[in-house]
Amino acid sequence: MKTNNIKEQMAIYAQSFEQKLAEQFSESNAEYAVLNNACKYSLLLGGKRLRPYLIHTFYELCGGDRDSSFEFEAAIECIHTYSLIHDDLPCMDNDAMRRGKPSCHIQFGEANALLAGDALLTKAFYFAANASCVPAENKVRAISLLSNYAGIDGMIGGQVVDLIYEDKTANEDVLKLICSLKTGALIKASCTIGCVLANASEQMVDAAAIYADNIGLAFQIVDDILDVTSTEEKLGKPINSDKDNNKSTFVSLFGIERCKELVLKLTNNAKDALSVFGDKAENLKLLADYLCNRDY
Amino acid sequence: MKTNNIKEQMAIYAQSFEQKLAEQFSESNAEYAVLNNACKYSLLLGGKRLRPYLIHTFYELCGGDRDSSFEFEAAIECIHTYSLIHDDLPCMDNDAMRRGKPSCHIQFGEANALLAGDALLTKAFYFAANASCVPAENKVRAISLLSNYAGIDGMIGGQVVDLIYEDKTANEDVLKLICSLKTGALIKASCTIGCVLANASEQMVDAAAIYADNIGLAFQIVDDILDVTSTEEKLGKPINSDKDNNKSTFVSLFGIERCKELVLKLTNNAKDALSVFGDKAENLKLLADYLCNRDY
Repeated sequence: MKTNNIKEQMAIYAQSFEQKLAEQFSESNAEYAVLNNACKYSLLLGGKRLRPYLIHTFYELCGGDRDSSFEFEAAIECIHTYSLIHDDLPCMDNDAMRRGKPSCHIQFGEANALLAGDALLTKAFYFAANASCVPAENKVRAISLLSNYAGIDGMIGGQVVDLIYEDKTANEDVLKLICSLKTGALIKASCTIGCVLANASEQMVDAAAIYADNIGLAFQIVDDILDVTSTEEKLGKPINSDKDNNKSTFVSLFGIERCKELVLKLTNNAKDALSVFGDKAENLKLLADYLCNRDY
Repeated sequence: MKTNNIKEQMAIYAQSFEQKLAEQFSESNAEYAVLNNACKYSLLLGGKRLRPYLIHTFYELCGGDRDSSFEFEAAIECIHTYSLIHDDLPCMDNDAMRRGKPSCHIQFGEANALLAGDALLTKAFYFAANASCVPAENKVRAISLLSNYAGIDGMIGGQVVDLIYEDKTANEDVLKLICSLKTGALIKASCTIGCVLANASEQMVDAAAIYADNIGLAFQIVDDILDVTSTEEKLGKPINSDKDNNKSTFVSLFGIERCKELVLKLTNNAKDALSVFGDKAENLKLLADYLCNRDY
Protein backbone atom coordinates (compact mmCIF):
# COMPACT_ATOMS: atom_id res chain seq x y z
CA MET A 1 0.00 0.00 0.00
CA LYS A 2 2.58 2.55 -1.07
CA THR A 3 0.65 4.71 -3.47
CA ASN A 4 -0.87 7.93 -2.30
CA ASN A 5 -3.80 7.50 -4.56
CA ILE A 6 -6.36 6.17 -2.08
CA LYS A 7 -9.06 5.86 -4.73
CA GLU A 8 -6.81 3.53 -6.69
CA GLN A 9 -5.86 1.59 -3.55
CA MET A 10 -9.53 1.10 -2.74
CA ALA A 11 -10.31 0.02 -6.30
CA ILE A 12 -7.51 -2.59 -6.18
CA TYR A 13 -8.77 -3.82 -2.82
CA ALA A 14 -12.39 -3.89 -4.05
CA GLN A 15 -11.52 -5.97 -7.10
CA SER A 16 -9.68 -8.63 -5.12
CA PHE A 17 -12.34 -8.60 -2.38
CA GLU A 18 -15.19 -9.02 -4.87
CA GLN A 19 -13.46 -11.95 -6.52
CA LYS A 20 -13.07 -13.77 -3.20
CA LEU A 21 -16.61 -12.87 -2.21
CA ALA A 22 -18.04 -14.22 -5.48
CA GLU A 23 -16.27 -17.54 -4.88
CA GLN A 24 -18.19 -17.90 -1.62
CA PHE A 25 -21.44 -17.88 -3.58
CA SER A 26 -20.30 -19.94 -6.55
CA GLU A 27 -22.17 -23.15 -5.72
CA SER A 28 -25.61 -23.89 -4.45
CA ASN A 29 -28.19 -26.64 -4.15
CA ALA A 30 -30.12 -26.59 -7.45
CA GLU A 31 -33.50 -26.50 -5.69
CA TYR A 32 -32.80 -23.09 -4.18
CA ALA A 33 -30.24 -21.75 -6.64
CA VAL A 34 -32.46 -18.71 -7.22
CA LEU A 35 -31.71 -17.52 -3.70
CA ASN A 36 -27.97 -17.92 -4.14
CA ASN A 37 -28.26 -15.99 -7.40
CA ALA A 38 -30.22 -13.20 -5.73
CA CYS A 39 -27.60 -12.91 -2.97
CA LYS A 40 -24.75 -12.88 -5.48
CA TYR A 41 -26.51 -10.38 -7.75
CA SER A 42 -26.93 -7.84 -4.98
CA LEU A 43 -23.51 -8.44 -3.45
CA LEU A 44 -21.82 -7.86 -6.79
CA LEU A 45 -23.73 -4.76 -7.89
CA GLY A 46 -20.63 -2.74 -7.08
CA GLY A 47 -19.99 -0.03 -4.54
CA LYS A 48 -16.89 1.32 -2.86
CA ARG A 49 -16.55 -1.64 -0.45
CA LEU A 50 -15.80 0.96 2.19
CA ARG A 51 -16.78 -1.16 5.19
CA PRO A 52 -14.69 -4.25 4.33
CA TYR A 53 -11.83 -1.93 3.35
CA LEU A 54 -11.98 -0.37 6.82
CA ILE A 55 -11.84 -3.77 8.54
CA HIS A 56 -8.96 -4.80 6.31
CA THR A 57 -7.03 -1.56 6.85
CA PHE A 58 -7.47 -1.32 10.63
CA TYR A 59 -6.62 -5.02 10.92
CA GLU A 60 -3.33 -4.55 9.06
CA LEU A 61 -2.64 -1.28 10.88
CA CYS A 62 -2.89 -3.10 14.21
CA GLY A 63 -0.47 -5.79 13.07
CA GLY A 64 -2.90 -8.43 11.90
CA ASP A 65 -1.74 -11.02 9.38
CA ARG A 66 -2.70 -10.36 5.81
CA ASP A 67 -6.06 -11.83 4.78
CA SER A 68 -7.08 -13.38 8.10
CA SER A 69 -9.77 -10.71 8.37
CA PHE A 70 -11.43 -11.70 5.07
CA GLU A 71 -14.38 -13.53 6.66
CA PHE A 72 -15.33 -10.49 8.70
CA GLU A 73 -14.89 -8.27 5.63
CA ALA A 74 -17.33 -10.57 3.80
CA ALA A 75 -19.63 -10.50 6.83
CA ILE A 76 -19.90 -6.70 7.00
CA GLU A 77 -20.54 -6.47 3.26
CA CYS A 78 -23.27 -9.14 3.52
CA ILE A 79 -24.92 -7.08 6.26
CA HIS A 80 -24.60 -3.84 4.31
CA THR A 81 -26.03 -5.52 1.21
CA TYR A 82 -28.95 -7.15 3.03
CA SER A 83 -29.86 -3.76 4.50
CA LEU A 84 -29.97 -2.26 0.97
CA ILE A 85 -32.12 -5.14 -0.35
CA HIS A 86 -34.65 -4.78 2.48
CA ASP A 87 -34.50 -0.95 2.25
CA ASP A 88 -35.47 -1.11 -1.43
CA LEU A 89 -38.55 -3.31 -0.81
CA PRO A 90 -41.99 -1.82 -1.60
CA CYS A 91 -42.94 -1.61 2.10
CA MET A 92 -39.78 0.43 2.80
CA ASP A 93 -38.32 2.93 0.27
CA ASN A 94 -39.84 1.15 -2.75
CA ASP A 95 -36.76 1.76 -4.92
CA ALA A 96 -36.76 -0.03 -8.26
CA MET A 97 -33.13 0.85 -9.01
CA ARG A 98 -29.91 0.28 -7.07
CA ARG A 99 -26.52 1.35 -8.42
CA GLY A 100 -28.05 1.88 -11.86
CA LYS A 101 -29.47 -1.66 -12.06
CA PRO A 102 -32.85 -3.20 -11.11
CA SER A 103 -33.14 -3.71 -7.34
CA CYS A 104 -33.15 -7.26 -6.02
CA HIS A 105 -36.96 -7.48 -5.72
CA ILE A 106 -37.42 -6.19 -9.28
CA GLN A 107 -35.00 -8.78 -10.58
CA PHE A 108 -36.02 -11.78 -8.43
CA GLY A 109 -39.44 -10.93 -6.97
CA GLU A 110 -40.33 -9.66 -3.52
CA ALA A 111 -40.33 -12.96 -1.64
CA ASN A 112 -36.91 -13.93 -2.96
CA ALA A 113 -35.53 -10.47 -2.15
CA LEU A 114 -36.85 -10.68 1.39
CA LEU A 115 -35.30 -14.14 1.84
CA ALA A 116 -32.04 -13.15 0.13
CA GLY A 117 -31.71 -10.35 2.67
CA ASP A 118 -32.37 -12.78 5.50
CA ALA A 119 -29.88 -15.24 4.00
CA LEU A 120 -27.13 -12.61 3.70
CA LEU A 121 -27.64 -11.45 7.28
CA THR A 122 -27.44 -15.04 8.49
CA LYS A 123 -24.47 -15.83 6.27
CA ALA A 124 -22.61 -12.87 7.76
CA PHE A 125 -22.49 -14.63 11.11
CA TYR A 126 -21.54 -17.93 9.49
CA PHE A 127 -18.57 -16.20 7.85
CA ALA A 128 -17.66 -14.57 11.16
CA ALA A 129 -17.87 -17.77 13.19
CA ASN A 130 -15.71 -19.56 10.61
CA ALA A 131 -12.98 -16.93 10.28
CA SER A 132 -9.74 -18.85 9.98
CA CYS A 133 -6.67 -17.95 12.02
CA VAL A 134 -8.56 -15.70 14.44
CA PRO A 135 -8.53 -16.72 18.13
CA ALA A 136 -12.01 -17.68 19.40
CA GLU A 137 -12.02 -14.89 22.03
CA ASN A 138 -11.39 -12.22 19.39
CA LYS A 139 -14.02 -13.74 17.11
CA VAL A 140 -16.65 -13.69 19.85
CA ARG A 141 -15.91 -10.07 20.70
CA ALA A 142 -16.04 -9.10 17.02
CA ILE A 143 -19.35 -10.98 16.56
CA SER A 144 -20.72 -9.12 19.54
CA LEU A 145 -19.69 -5.77 18.02
CA LEU A 146 -21.09 -6.76 14.63
CA SER A 147 -24.47 -7.87 15.97
CA ASN A 148 -24.73 -4.87 18.27
CA TYR A 149 -23.97 -2.24 15.64
CA ALA A 150 -26.10 -3.99 12.99
CA GLY A 151 -29.05 -4.43 15.36
CA ILE A 152 -31.83 -2.59 17.11
CA ASP A 153 -29.45 -0.20 18.90
CA GLY A 154 -27.51 0.33 15.68
CA MET A 155 -28.35 0.22 11.99
CA ILE A 156 -31.88 -1.16 12.35
CA GLY A 157 -32.80 1.38 15.04
CA GLY A 158 -31.59 4.05 12.61
CA GLN A 159 -33.83 2.75 9.86
CA VAL A 160 -36.84 2.87 12.16
CA VAL A 161 -36.19 6.47 13.22
CA ASP A 162 -35.57 7.35 9.58
CA LEU A 163 -38.98 5.89 8.67
CA ILE A 164 -40.68 7.74 11.53
CA TYR A 165 -39.25 11.06 10.31
CA GLU A 166 -39.93 10.35 6.66
CA ASP A 167 -42.65 12.92 6.45
CA LYS A 168 -42.01 15.11 9.45
CA THR A 169 -39.28 17.68 10.08
CA ALA A 170 -36.28 16.34 11.98
CA ASN A 171 -34.10 18.63 14.08
CA GLU A 172 -30.31 18.44 14.32
CA ASP A 173 -30.34 15.93 17.19
CA VAL A 174 -32.66 13.56 15.35
CA LEU A 175 -30.68 13.83 12.10
CA LYS A 176 -27.48 13.06 14.00
CA LEU A 177 -29.13 10.11 15.77
CA ILE A 178 -30.39 8.68 12.46
CA CYS A 179 -26.99 9.15 10.88
CA SER A 180 -24.99 7.73 13.77
CA LEU A 181 -27.21 4.64 13.74
CA LYS A 182 -28.19 4.11 10.10
CA THR A 183 -24.88 4.97 8.44
CA GLY A 184 -22.47 5.33 11.33
CA ALA A 185 -23.04 2.07 13.18
CA LEU A 186 -21.71 -0.27 10.46
CA ILE A 187 -18.74 2.03 9.84
CA LYS A 188 -17.99 1.97 13.55
CA ALA A 189 -18.37 -1.81 13.56
CA SER A 190 -15.89 -2.05 10.69
CA CYS A 191 -13.18 0.12 12.26
CA THR A 192 -13.41 -1.46 15.72
CA ILE A 193 -13.68 -5.04 14.44
CA GLY A 194 -10.47 -4.59 12.43
CA CYS A 195 -8.69 -3.63 15.65
CA VAL A 196 -10.27 -6.33 17.82
CA LEU A 197 -9.41 -9.12 15.36
CA ALA A 198 -5.76 -8.04 15.53
CA ASN A 199 -5.69 -7.93 19.33
CA ALA A 200 -5.15 -4.14 19.37
CA SER A 201 -4.99 -2.17 22.64
CA GLU A 202 -8.20 -0.63 24.01
CA GLN A 203 -6.70 2.79 23.25
CA MET A 204 -6.53 1.83 19.59
CA VAL A 205 -10.08 0.42 19.58
CA ASP A 206 -11.32 3.69 21.10
CA ALA A 207 -9.39 5.78 18.55
CA ALA A 208 -10.88 3.69 15.71
CA ALA A 209 -14.36 4.35 17.13
CA ILE A 210 -13.74 8.13 17.19
CA TYR A 211 -12.39 8.03 13.62
CA ALA A 212 -15.50 6.07 12.60
CA ASP A 213 -17.93 8.47 14.30
CA ASN A 214 -16.41 11.40 12.45
CA ILE A 215 -16.09 9.87 8.99
CA GLY A 216 -19.55 8.30 9.39
CA LEU A 217 -21.22 11.67 9.98
CA ALA A 218 -19.09 13.33 7.28
CA PHE A 219 -20.06 10.53 4.87
CA GLN A 220 -23.78 11.15 5.42
CA ILE A 221 -23.48 14.93 5.09
CA VAL A 222 -21.56 14.47 1.81
CA ASP A 223 -24.36 12.12 0.65
CA ASP A 224 -26.88 14.85 1.42
CA ILE A 225 -24.78 17.42 -0.46
CA LEU A 226 -24.36 15.12 -3.48
CA ASP A 227 -28.11 14.51 -3.61
CA VAL A 228 -28.38 18.24 -4.43
CA THR A 229 -25.19 18.92 -6.40
CA SER A 230 -24.36 15.71 -8.32
CA THR A 231 -25.87 14.09 -11.41
CA GLU A 232 -27.91 10.91 -11.82
CA GLU A 233 -25.13 9.43 -13.97
CA LYS A 234 -22.48 9.89 -11.31
CA LEU A 235 -24.62 8.69 -8.38
CA GLY A 236 -26.33 5.82 -10.20
CA LYS A 237 -29.61 6.95 -8.59
CA PRO A 238 -32.02 9.89 -8.95
CA ILE A 239 -30.81 13.22 -7.52
CA ASN A 240 -32.94 15.63 -5.49
CA SER A 241 -34.67 12.59 -4.02
CA ASP A 242 -34.56 14.02 -0.50
CA LYS A 243 -36.20 17.28 -1.58
CA ASP A 244 -38.77 15.44 -3.71
CA ASN A 245 -39.59 13.27 -0.69
CA ASN A 246 -39.76 16.31 1.63
CA LYS A 247 -37.05 14.73 3.74
CA SER A 248 -35.07 16.65 6.34
CA THR A 249 -31.35 16.48 5.60
CA PHE A 250 -28.27 18.27 6.84
CA VAL A 251 -28.48 20.40 3.69
CA SER A 252 -32.11 21.38 4.31
CA LEU A 253 -31.19 22.18 7.92
CA PHE A 254 -27.88 24.01 7.50
CA GLY A 255 -27.50 24.86 3.78
CA ILE A 256 -24.69 23.62 1.56
CA GLU A 257 -21.94 25.99 2.72
CA ARG A 258 -22.27 25.19 6.41
CA CYS A 259 -22.46 21.51 5.52
CA LYS A 260 -19.17 21.72 3.65
CA GLU A 261 -17.52 23.41 6.67
CA LEU A 262 -18.91 20.71 8.94
CA VAL A 263 -17.55 17.95 6.68
CA LEU A 264 -14.11 19.57 6.79
CA LYS A 265 -14.18 19.82 10.58
CA LEU A 266 -15.31 16.19 10.98
CA THR A 267 -12.63 15.02 8.56
CA ASN A 268 -9.96 16.78 10.60
CA ASN A 269 -11.31 15.29 13.82
CA ALA A 270 -11.15 11.85 12.21
CA LYS A 271 -7.55 12.36 11.13
CA ASP A 272 -6.55 13.66 14.57
CA ALA A 273 -7.94 10.53 16.21
CA LEU A 274 -5.44 8.44 14.27
CA SER A 275 -2.42 9.89 16.12
CA VAL A 276 -2.31 6.85 18.42
CA PHE A 277 -1.31 4.75 15.39
CA GLY A 278 1.72 6.94 14.62
CA ASP A 279 2.63 7.52 10.99
CA LYS A 280 1.37 4.12 9.79
CA ALA A 281 -2.19 5.38 9.39
CA GLU A 282 -1.49 7.56 6.35
CA ASN A 283 -3.96 5.75 4.09
CA LEU A 284 -6.77 6.16 6.62
CA LYS A 285 -6.09 9.90 6.64
CA LEU A 286 -6.20 9.89 2.84
CA LEU A 287 -9.42 7.93 3.03
CA ALA A 288 -11.00 10.55 5.27
CA ASP A 289 -9.96 13.26 2.78
CA TYR A 290 -11.24 11.21 -0.14
CA LEU A 291 -14.66 10.58 1.47
CA CYS A 292 -14.90 14.29 2.20
CA ASN A 293 -14.09 15.27 -1.40
CA ARG A 294 -15.79 12.47 -3.35
CA ASP A 295 -18.25 13.34 -6.10
CA TYR A 296 -20.26 10.09 -6.15
CA MET B 1 -37.25 -32.59 36.16
CA LYS B 2 -38.83 -35.54 37.99
CA THR B 3 -42.37 -35.58 36.72
CA ASN B 4 -43.32 -37.85 33.90
CA ASN B 5 -45.69 -35.33 32.54
CA ILE B 6 -43.63 -33.84 29.74
CA LYS B 7 -46.35 -31.38 28.76
CA GLU B 8 -46.32 -29.97 32.26
CA GLN B 9 -42.49 -29.90 32.33
CA MET B 10 -42.47 -27.98 29.07
CA ALA B 11 -45.10 -25.54 30.32
CA ILE B 12 -43.05 -24.86 33.47
CA TYR B 13 -39.93 -24.36 31.36
CA ALA B 14 -41.80 -22.13 28.89
CA GLN B 15 -43.13 -19.87 31.63
CA SER B 16 -39.72 -19.29 33.18
CA PHE B 17 -38.08 -18.90 29.76
CA GLU B 18 -40.65 -16.35 28.59
CA GLN B 19 -40.17 -14.29 31.73
CA LYS B 20 -36.40 -14.12 31.23
CA LEU B 21 -36.87 -13.42 27.52
CA ALA B 22 -39.30 -10.56 28.20
CA GLU B 23 -36.73 -8.95 30.52
CA GLN B 24 -34.29 -8.79 27.61
CA PHE B 25 -36.74 -6.57 25.72
CA SER B 26 -37.94 -4.48 28.66
CA GLU B 27 -36.12 -1.26 27.80
CA SER B 28 -35.52 0.60 24.59
CA ASN B 29 -34.54 4.00 23.24
CA ALA B 30 -37.80 5.99 23.04
CA GLU B 31 -37.17 6.99 19.41
CA TYR B 32 -37.41 3.40 18.21
CA ALA B 33 -39.53 1.89 20.99
CA VAL B 34 -42.03 0.71 18.37
CA LEU B 35 -39.49 -1.77 17.07
CA ASN B 36 -38.75 -3.14 20.51
CA ASN B 37 -42.50 -3.47 21.07
CA ALA B 38 -42.95 -5.32 17.78
CA CYS B 39 -40.16 -7.76 18.67
CA LYS B 40 -41.58 -8.34 22.14
CA TYR B 41 -45.14 -8.73 20.82
CA SER B 42 -44.16 -11.50 18.42
CA LEU B 43 -41.75 -13.20 20.82
CA LEU B 44 -44.42 -13.40 23.50
CA LEU B 45 -47.34 -14.61 21.36
CA GLY B 46 -46.91 -18.02 22.94
CA GLY B 47 -45.96 -21.35 21.48
CA LYS B 48 -44.46 -24.52 22.90
CA ARG B 49 -40.91 -23.10 23.08
CA LEU B 50 -39.78 -26.45 21.71
CA ARG B 51 -36.45 -25.22 20.28
CA PRO B 52 -35.15 -23.50 23.43
CA TYR B 53 -36.42 -26.44 25.49
CA LEU B 54 -34.33 -28.78 23.33
CA ILE B 55 -31.18 -26.67 23.81
CA HIS B 56 -31.83 -26.52 27.56
CA THR B 57 -32.51 -30.24 27.86
CA PHE B 58 -29.58 -31.49 25.75
CA TYR B 59 -27.32 -29.02 27.57
CA GLU B 60 -28.31 -30.41 30.98
CA LEU B 61 -28.23 -33.98 29.67
CA CYS B 62 -24.60 -33.48 28.62
CA GLY B 63 -23.65 -32.14 32.03
CA GLY B 64 -23.93 -28.40 31.36
CA ASP B 65 -24.48 -26.06 34.30
CA ARG B 66 -28.03 -24.94 34.83
CA ASP B 67 -28.98 -21.77 32.95
CA SER B 68 -25.69 -21.12 31.14
CA SER B 69 -27.42 -22.04 27.90
CA PHE B 70 -30.08 -19.32 28.29
CA GLU B 71 -28.58 -16.92 25.74
CA PHE B 72 -28.59 -19.60 23.04
CA GLU B 73 -32.15 -20.58 24.02
CA ALA B 74 -33.13 -16.93 23.54
CA ALA B 75 -31.20 -16.85 20.27
CA ILE B 76 -32.98 -19.84 18.72
CA GLU B 77 -36.38 -18.47 19.74
CA CYS B 78 -35.51 -15.07 18.21
CA ILE B 79 -34.63 -16.83 14.96
CA HIS B 80 -37.77 -18.96 15.01
CA THR B 81 -39.89 -15.86 15.72
CA TYR B 82 -38.27 -13.72 13.02
CA SER B 83 -38.93 -16.50 10.49
CA LEU B 84 -42.63 -16.49 11.43
CA ILE B 85 -42.86 -12.68 11.17
CA HIS B 86 -41.28 -12.66 7.70
CA ASP B 87 -43.31 -15.73 6.65
CA ASP B 88 -46.55 -13.92 7.50
CA LEU B 89 -45.70 -10.84 5.38
CA PRO B 90 -47.92 -10.09 2.35
CA CYS B 91 -45.17 -11.01 -0.13
CA MET B 92 -44.83 -14.43 1.54
CA ASP B 93 -47.80 -16.33 3.04
CA ASN B 94 -49.83 -13.16 3.67
CA ASP B 95 -51.20 -14.43 6.99
CA ALA B 96 -53.13 -11.89 9.05
CA MET B 97 -53.29 -14.14 12.11
CA ARG B 98 -50.62 -15.90 14.14
CA ARG B 99 -51.43 -17.98 17.23
CA GLY B 100 -54.95 -16.52 17.25
CA LYS B 101 -53.71 -12.89 17.34
CA PRO B 102 -52.99 -10.31 14.61
CA SER B 103 -49.66 -11.01 12.88
CA CYS B 104 -46.82 -8.58 13.48
CA HIS B 105 -47.39 -6.64 10.24
CA ILE B 106 -51.11 -6.27 10.96
CA GLN B 107 -50.34 -4.94 14.42
CA PHE B 108 -47.32 -2.74 13.63
CA GLY B 109 -47.33 -2.24 9.83
CA GLU B 110 -45.28 -3.95 7.18
CA ALA B 111 -42.09 -1.91 7.45
CA ASN B 112 -41.89 -2.38 11.21
CA ALA B 113 -42.58 -6.10 10.87
CA LEU B 114 -39.82 -6.45 8.29
CA LEU B 115 -37.38 -4.58 10.53
CA ALA B 116 -38.52 -6.40 13.69
CA GLY B 117 -37.68 -9.67 11.93
CA ASP B 118 -34.27 -8.32 10.94
CA ALA B 119 -33.72 -7.07 14.48
CA LEU B 120 -34.60 -10.43 16.06
CA LEU B 121 -32.30 -12.31 13.69
CA THR B 122 -29.46 -9.91 14.50
CA LYS B 123 -30.22 -10.00 18.24
CA ALA B 124 -29.97 -13.79 18.15
CA PHE B 125 -26.28 -13.53 17.38
CA TYR B 126 -25.79 -10.81 19.97
CA PHE B 127 -27.29 -13.11 22.59
CA ALA B 128 -25.11 -15.97 21.37
CA ALA B 129 -21.88 -13.96 21.38
CA ASN B 130 -22.64 -12.74 24.89
CA ALA B 131 -23.55 -16.07 26.45
CA SER B 132 -22.06 -16.02 29.93
CA CYS B 133 -20.06 -18.92 31.30
CA VAL B 134 -19.59 -20.62 27.93
CA PRO B 135 -15.99 -21.03 26.69
CA ALA B 136 -15.29 -18.97 23.53
CA GLU B 137 -14.47 -22.07 21.45
CA ASN B 138 -17.84 -23.66 22.26
CA LYS B 139 -19.64 -20.39 21.56
CA VAL B 140 -18.00 -20.06 18.15
CA ARG B 141 -18.91 -23.62 17.19
CA ALA B 142 -22.48 -23.12 18.37
CA ILE B 143 -22.75 -19.82 16.43
CA SER B 144 -21.49 -21.64 13.35
CA LEU B 145 -24.17 -24.35 13.77
CA LEU B 146 -26.86 -21.73 14.41
CA SER B 147 -26.00 -19.62 11.36
CA ASN B 148 -25.61 -22.67 9.15
CA TYR B 149 -28.92 -24.31 10.07
CA ALA B 150 -30.79 -20.96 10.01
CA GLY B 151 -29.30 -19.95 6.66
CA ILE B 152 -29.43 -20.63 2.96
CA ASP B 153 -28.52 -24.32 3.38
CA GLY B 154 -31.00 -24.64 6.23
CA MET B 155 -34.24 -22.93 7.18
CA ILE B 156 -34.12 -20.19 4.52
CA GLY B 157 -33.34 -22.68 1.73
CA GLY B 158 -36.39 -24.62 2.91
CA GLN B 159 -38.59 -21.55 2.67
CA VAL B 160 -37.45 -20.94 -0.89
CA VAL B 161 -38.17 -24.51 -1.99
CA ASP B 162 -41.51 -24.31 -0.18
CA LEU B 163 -42.37 -21.16 -2.16
CA ILE B 164 -41.30 -22.76 -5.44
CA TYR B 165 -43.61 -25.73 -4.82
CA GLU B 166 -46.49 -23.62 -3.54
CA ASP B 167 -48.59 -24.26 -6.59
CA LYS B 168 -47.01 -27.34 -8.08
CA THR B 169 -47.05 -30.93 -6.91
CA ALA B 170 -44.10 -31.97 -4.79
CA ASN B 171 -42.94 -35.59 -4.64
CA GLU B 172 -41.73 -37.38 -1.51
CA ASP B 173 -38.10 -36.29 -1.96
CA VAL B 174 -39.03 -32.64 -2.32
CA LEU B 175 -41.40 -32.75 0.66
CA LYS B 176 -38.66 -34.34 2.77
CA LEU B 177 -36.13 -31.74 1.59
CA ILE B 178 -38.50 -28.87 2.45
CA CYS B 179 -39.23 -30.39 5.83
CA SER B 180 -35.63 -31.20 6.72
CA LEU B 181 -34.67 -27.61 5.91
CA LYS B 182 -37.68 -25.51 6.85
CA THR B 183 -38.71 -27.27 10.07
CA GLY B 184 -35.88 -29.70 10.68
CA ALA B 185 -32.87 -27.40 10.50
CA LEU B 186 -33.68 -25.29 13.56
CA ILE B 187 -34.61 -28.39 15.56
CA LYS B 188 -31.29 -29.94 14.60
CA ALA B 189 -29.52 -26.70 15.52
CA SER B 190 -31.21 -26.79 18.93
CA CYS B 191 -30.31 -30.39 19.78
CA THR B 192 -26.69 -30.15 18.63
CA ILE B 193 -26.07 -26.69 20.13
CA GLY B 194 -27.20 -27.96 23.54
CA CYS B 195 -24.54 -30.69 23.30
CA VAL B 196 -21.79 -28.45 21.93
CA LEU B 197 -22.26 -25.82 24.65
CA ALA B 198 -21.77 -28.53 27.28
CA ASN B 199 -18.64 -29.92 25.63
CA ALA B 200 -20.33 -33.24 24.82
CA SER B 201 -18.53 -36.00 22.89
CA GLU B 202 -18.91 -36.13 19.10
CA GLN B 203 -20.86 -39.35 19.55
CA MET B 204 -23.42 -37.46 21.60
CA VAL B 205 -23.60 -34.57 19.10
CA ASP B 206 -24.23 -37.11 16.32
CA ALA B 207 -26.92 -38.88 18.35
CA ALA B 208 -28.62 -35.54 19.04
CA ALA B 209 -28.60 -34.83 15.29
CA ILE B 210 -30.28 -38.19 14.51
CA TYR B 211 -32.87 -37.59 17.25
CA ALA B 212 -33.49 -34.14 15.73
CA ASP B 213 -33.85 -35.44 12.16
CA ASN B 214 -36.48 -37.93 13.27
CA ILE B 215 -38.56 -35.71 15.55
CA GLY B 216 -38.27 -32.88 12.99
CA LEU B 217 -39.84 -34.97 10.24
CA ALA B 218 -42.40 -36.45 12.63
CA PHE B 219 -43.28 -32.93 13.80
CA GLN B 220 -44.01 -31.77 10.26
CA ILE B 221 -46.07 -34.85 9.40
CA VAL B 222 -48.13 -34.34 12.58
CA ASP B 223 -48.62 -30.69 11.52
CA ASP B 224 -49.92 -31.89 8.16
CA ILE B 225 -52.25 -34.38 9.89
CA LEU B 226 -53.55 -31.73 12.33
CA ASP B 227 -54.25 -29.35 9.45
CA VAL B 228 -56.83 -31.92 8.34
CA THR B 229 -58.06 -33.39 11.64
CA SER B 230 -57.87 -30.60 14.24
CA THR B 231 -60.03 -27.53 14.86
CA GLU B 232 -59.32 -23.84 14.40
CA GLU B 233 -59.75 -23.30 18.17
CA LYS B 234 -57.08 -25.86 19.06
CA LEU B 235 -54.57 -24.81 16.38
CA GLY B 236 -55.11 -21.05 16.70
CA LYS B 237 -55.10 -20.87 12.89
CA PRO B 238 -57.41 -21.95 10.05
CA ILE B 239 -57.56 -25.69 9.32
CA ASN B 240 -57.56 -27.26 5.86
CA SER B 241 -55.24 -24.43 4.78
CA ASP B 242 -52.95 -26.81 2.86
CA LYS B 243 -55.87 -28.26 0.88
CA ASP B 244 -57.37 -24.81 0.28
CA ASN B 245 -53.98 -23.66 -1.03
CA ASN B 246 -53.57 -26.79 -3.18
CA LYS B 247 -50.38 -27.55 -1.30
CA SER B 248 -48.67 -30.95 -1.43
CA THR B 249 -48.31 -32.40 2.07
CA PHE B 250 -47.40 -35.78 3.52
CA VAL B 251 -51.15 -36.34 4.00
CA SER B 252 -51.98 -35.55 0.37
CA LEU B 253 -49.12 -37.84 -0.69
CA PHE B 254 -49.60 -40.82 1.65
CA GLY B 255 -53.02 -40.43 3.31
CA ILE B 256 -53.61 -40.09 7.06
CA GLU B 257 -53.15 -43.74 8.06
CA ARG B 258 -49.74 -44.15 6.45
CA CYS B 259 -48.70 -40.80 7.88
CA LYS B 260 -49.60 -41.97 11.37
CA GLU B 261 -47.51 -45.12 10.90
CA LEU B 262 -44.61 -43.03 9.64
CA VAL B 263 -44.80 -40.74 12.67
CA LEU B 264 -44.69 -43.76 14.97
CA LYS B 265 -41.65 -45.17 13.17
CA LEU B 266 -39.80 -41.84 13.24
CA THR B 267 -40.61 -41.41 16.91
CA ASN B 268 -39.14 -44.83 17.70
CA ASN B 269 -36.01 -44.03 15.65
CA ALA B 270 -35.64 -40.80 17.62
CA LYS B 271 -35.93 -42.62 20.94
CA ASP B 272 -33.46 -45.31 19.84
CA ALA B 273 -30.87 -42.65 19.00
CA LEU B 274 -30.86 -41.56 22.64
CA SER B 275 -29.29 -44.81 23.88
CA VAL B 276 -25.84 -43.18 24.00
CA PHE B 277 -27.12 -40.98 26.84
CA GLY B 278 -28.09 -44.00 28.98
CA ASP B 279 -31.20 -43.67 31.13
CA LYS B 280 -30.83 -39.93 31.72
CA ALA B 281 -32.65 -39.06 28.51
CA GLU B 282 -36.09 -40.15 29.69
CA ASN B 283 -37.68 -36.73 29.22
CA LEU B 284 -36.44 -36.53 25.62
CA LYS B 285 -38.12 -39.88 24.94
CA LEU B 286 -41.30 -38.56 26.51
CA LEU B 287 -40.95 -35.45 24.38
CA ALA B 288 -40.76 -37.52 21.20
CA ASP B 289 -43.93 -39.38 22.26
CA TYR B 290 -45.67 -36.14 23.15
CA LEU B 291 -44.84 -34.49 19.80
CA CYS B 292 -46.10 -37.59 18.04
CA ASN B 293 -49.40 -37.59 19.95
CA ARG B 294 -50.07 -33.85 20.32
CA ASP B 295 -53.39 -32.44 19.20
CA TYR B 296 -52.33 -28.80 18.60
